[in-house]
Amino acid sequence: MAQVPDHKQKLREICRVAARVFYEKGYEGASMQDVAQAVGLTKAGLYHHVGSKDRLLFEIMNYGMDILDETVLQKVKDIADPREKLRQTIIGHINLVVRARDLEITVILHENRSLTGPLRKQINARKRAYIKNLENLIAQVQAQAGGKPAISPHLAAFVALGMINWLYQWYNPEGPIKLEELTQAYVDFFFRGMQV
Amino acid sequence: MAQVPDHKQKLREICRVAARVFYEKGYEGASMQDVAQAVGLTKAGLYHHVGSKDRLLFEIMNYGMDILDETVLQKVKDIADPREKLRQTIIGHINLVVRARDLEITVILHENRSLTGPLRKQINARKRAYIKNLENLIAQVQAQAGGKPAISPHLAAFVALGMINWLYQWYNPEGPIKLEELTQAYVDFFFRGMQV
Repeated sequence: MAQVPDHKQKLREICRVAARVFYEKGYEGASMQDVAQAVGLTKAGLYHHVGSKDRLLFEIMNYGMDILDETVLQKVKDIADPREKLRQTIIGHINLVVRARDLEITVILHENRSLTGPLRKQINARKRAYIKNLENLIAQVQAQAGGKPAISPHLAAFVALGMINWLYQWYNPEGPIKLEELTQAYVDFFFRGMQV
Repeated sequence: MAQVPDHKQKLREICRVAARVFYEKGYEGASMQDVAQAVGLTKAGLYHHVGSKDRLLFEIMNYGMDILDETVLQKVKDIADPREKLRQTIIGHINLVVRARDLEITVILHENRSLTGPLRKQINARKRAYIKNLENLIAQVQAQAGGKPAISPHLAAFVALGMINWLYQWYNPEGPIKLEELTQAYVDFFFRGMQV
């Protein structure tokens, strides 16, 4: 992972704590005072770091996308075989979603109704780039498999995102289904569904 | 559909409007005054109908589960063949999720962090019953197909719920992908993934 500069580390720390506050009280229900208190800053200090409540929400979502890039895309970037790359992308994304550490951030990332205007557009552009990357990978796997694709890369990408992102609703890594079992079952299901 | 009594009709109307207010302002960000105004009741009148804000959120979620039962389960209850019954269950659930009319209610149904205690337990019990029903149906389809099941009914049920419930995040029935095309692709993908 690339070295993260100090001021970015501080911002990330604020984002993690703020995400927990927003997750618990709701974005609209939580005040900047609540966040400042949880982070251990004065309200003025918090505003100095993040500018505004809108901007803070944006930074949390942006951080969520950074985590996705760093823990999923970076890890697979040197894999040449499309099939193995897709497999590892799915596994990486599952690991991220079920990892308790960033639960609040990944949940908030998908509740993007509160973000508006240009900030929302920026986050949506990053989400679209992630999806586009997944679609390209799926298309490569289908091309390698040959024959007529069973599903469009676009729909297949959203099937994958739905299966995986929904995990936070029900899956508990401490429960009866081991993470390895879940991951294997999901990858196998997805490749069978793709017919590749 | 069964006849719905008058007082329940009124409660449902309140739930629909309140769901829109909560969706826009967030549950914690919206006041009972906001809801009363949107419904066209006094605050006292609103409290008379729903008891409390907690209770109102519970009623919205309960209504969401009613809609799921009425528009999905009731429609397939007379289908004898498990395969066709599962197919129609998936189609019914997709139709419900992408239907703009109840968008706010279905979204709120899955953001159940704000509900606590016994009310949350009641909603979770209804959700579990829905999932259990889906699992049983999947097990019947697998038994009919014979051989070793490719995935446990439990995991397959959550794959289906993830694929379908995630649609609200991205799918627009007015967009380039027709609903029929989407439904067919999703059903086919799911049955291939199940290997049945």
